Amino acid sequence: MYDVIIIGAGPAGMAAAIYAGRAKLNAALFEKEFVGGQVTKTYEVANYPGIADVIGPELALKMQEHAKEYGIEPIVEEVIDIEVEDKIKKVITKNNSYEARTILLAMGATWKELGVPGEKKLKAKGVSYCATCDGAFFNGKNTVVVGGGNRGVEDAILLAKFSPKVYLIQDLFHLTAQKILQDTLFSLDNVEVLTNHQVLEILGEDKVEGIKIKDKASEEEKVLDVEGVFVAVGMIPNSDIVHGKVATNQWGYIIANDSCETNIPGVYAAGDIRDKKLRQIITAASDGAIAVSSVEKYLLENPQK
Amino acid sequence: MYDVIIIGAGPAGMAAAIYAGRAKLNAALFEKEFVGGQVTKTYEVANYPGIADVIGPELALKMQEHAKEYGIEPIVEEVIDIEVEDKIKKVITKNNSYEARTILLAMGATWKELGVPGEKKLKAKGVSYCATCDGAFFNGKNTVVVGGGNRGVEDAILLAKFSPKVYLIQDLFHLTAQKILQDTLFSLDNVEVLTNHQVLEILGEDKVEGIKIKDKASEEEKVLDVEGVFVAVGMIPNSDIVHGKVATNQWGYIIANDSCETNIPGVYAAGDIRDKKLRQIITAASDGAIAVSSVEKYLLENPQK
Repeated sequence: MYDVIIIGAGPAGMAAAIYAGRAKLNAALFEKEFVGGQVTKTYEVANYPGIADVIGPELALKMQEHAKEYGIEPIVEEVIDIEVEDKIKKVITKNNSYEARTILLAMGATWKELGVPGEKKLKAKGVSYCATCDGAFFNGKNTVVVGGGNRGVEDAILLAKFSPKVYLIQDLFHLTAQKILQDTLFSLDNVEVLTNHQVLEILGEDKVEGIKIKDKASEEEKVLDVEGVFVAVGMIPNSDIVHGKVATNQWGYIIANDSCETNIPGVYAAGDIRDKKLRQIITAASDGAIAVSSVEKYLLENPQK
Repeated sequence: MYDVIIIGAGPAGMAAAIYAGRAKLNAALFEKEFVGGQVTKTYEVANYPGIADVIGPELALKMQEHAKEYGIEPIVEEVIDIEVEDKIKKVITKNNSYEARTILLAMGATWKELGVPGEKKLKAKGVSYCATCDGAFFNGKNTVVVGGGNRGVEDAILLAKFSPKVYLIQDLFHLTAQKILQDTLFSLDNVEVLTNHQVLEILGEDKVEGIKIKDKASEEEKVLDVEGVFVAVGMIPNSDIVHGKVATNQWGYIIANDSCETNIPGVYAAGDIRDKKLRQIITAASDGAIAVSSVEKYLLENPQK
């Protein structure tokens, strides 16, 4: 019986593992795929305070080694179900079933892709899903944002500080962002908004060299000369296994308070999978620490018989 | 006119400076004393995920250099007052006055000291104010916790996992911690609780070698053989300049929501100074990032005339 099973070895899960290890909890960390989560698929990471310049996989490795110092190594097994109704919780993987007094859900979220040619190949080679994370790398370079919601418009406003020219592509006739954000966007000289346009392809071999788009009205195609493509069409939380078991919001993000407590006693959520404002490595790692603090409190208040 | 003035260059303020610099905000960072805040006064830091082993001042320096890369260097001037009623906020230091569209309060908090001989000299040499931070360094070593509230009892329970013997000293007749915590504490074989005892002195030259205590009833003095002294008698938020201006709780911690917004539009709080559950370097740095995200949103929604 584990004190806590952590599901997901991204920054939230690994920070939790470090804190759990240091608190001498009997903890297990499950990961279905790659340790590091989305971090491993990012650009250089330049916004994790104290580590000025590191590539994503290296930061993931640093965290993994850090957790290992306290005896916690990820178990690579996909969790396919959880049982949370009773005091003793269960975590079910493809081949096994594990018991734990608490569960920490840290499965993260996945950026939605455009699904166009060139996108997968050029990921982290000019294609980014997070302007807050990667915008500063495009100083002096033209960029395009795909998506006209709040996130897309905010990204374009941010990128306009770095890029000589920023395009914003929206497939609808209108932007859907808040009016006040749109006002700021349209006040910027170096931003060009193209509504009712569709992305056909991202061009380039080893790095982005342009984007091919189509005017949906005229069917006219053209190529924009950009080195960065910021995709801002949403995220999907990796919360399939909790549906019907733990409260989520309408988009599937797990609802947890600022102590990372979900609606189920003994079940916690940390990182991108949580309903929260800012999804960054540093905020995920912070969640992991806070969640373990809540786990410790719960274990003290619910001693084993 | 600054976009944001950050007050306090601990982990919260420095993380905020990094995020503000990357967002190309016109930002200033004020520090009255040492860059790094309490971090500089701690032991080795082993719980900042991704940096497995670093001394406090070195982590502070890493963050400072990180912020410098984005053009933000701390201004060493003590802030003595702020004016927050109008859209244009003011930050007043001993010799100057600065204007800003937003203010981020990150002045931190200070652990209360016992005020006994030996304490100052042996700080970070066996005297610690944070068992969550430093407990794991005392594996195999006897420790004492001073303070019988929730924090003190939690600390003793944690330390009992590392120390062959843990003493808990309380100056009252009873512990004031929650009953359930006390139950756990008293179930531990290696913890000895000494109520109605007073600490007279912490012994040792370069490291803690013992603690001298007095039984307040019998006036009998004795020395406990410990290598670690954990002081758990509370914290004081460094919030003097905000009183009457920004809402605080009854202990003086600034009340801010999970976006780090205080009750005053355009004024934010991050790190230990906030009313929050877990005060750690990682949670402070996360606050700094979140607060800047809120600042960016505010600046967009409140454009300059």
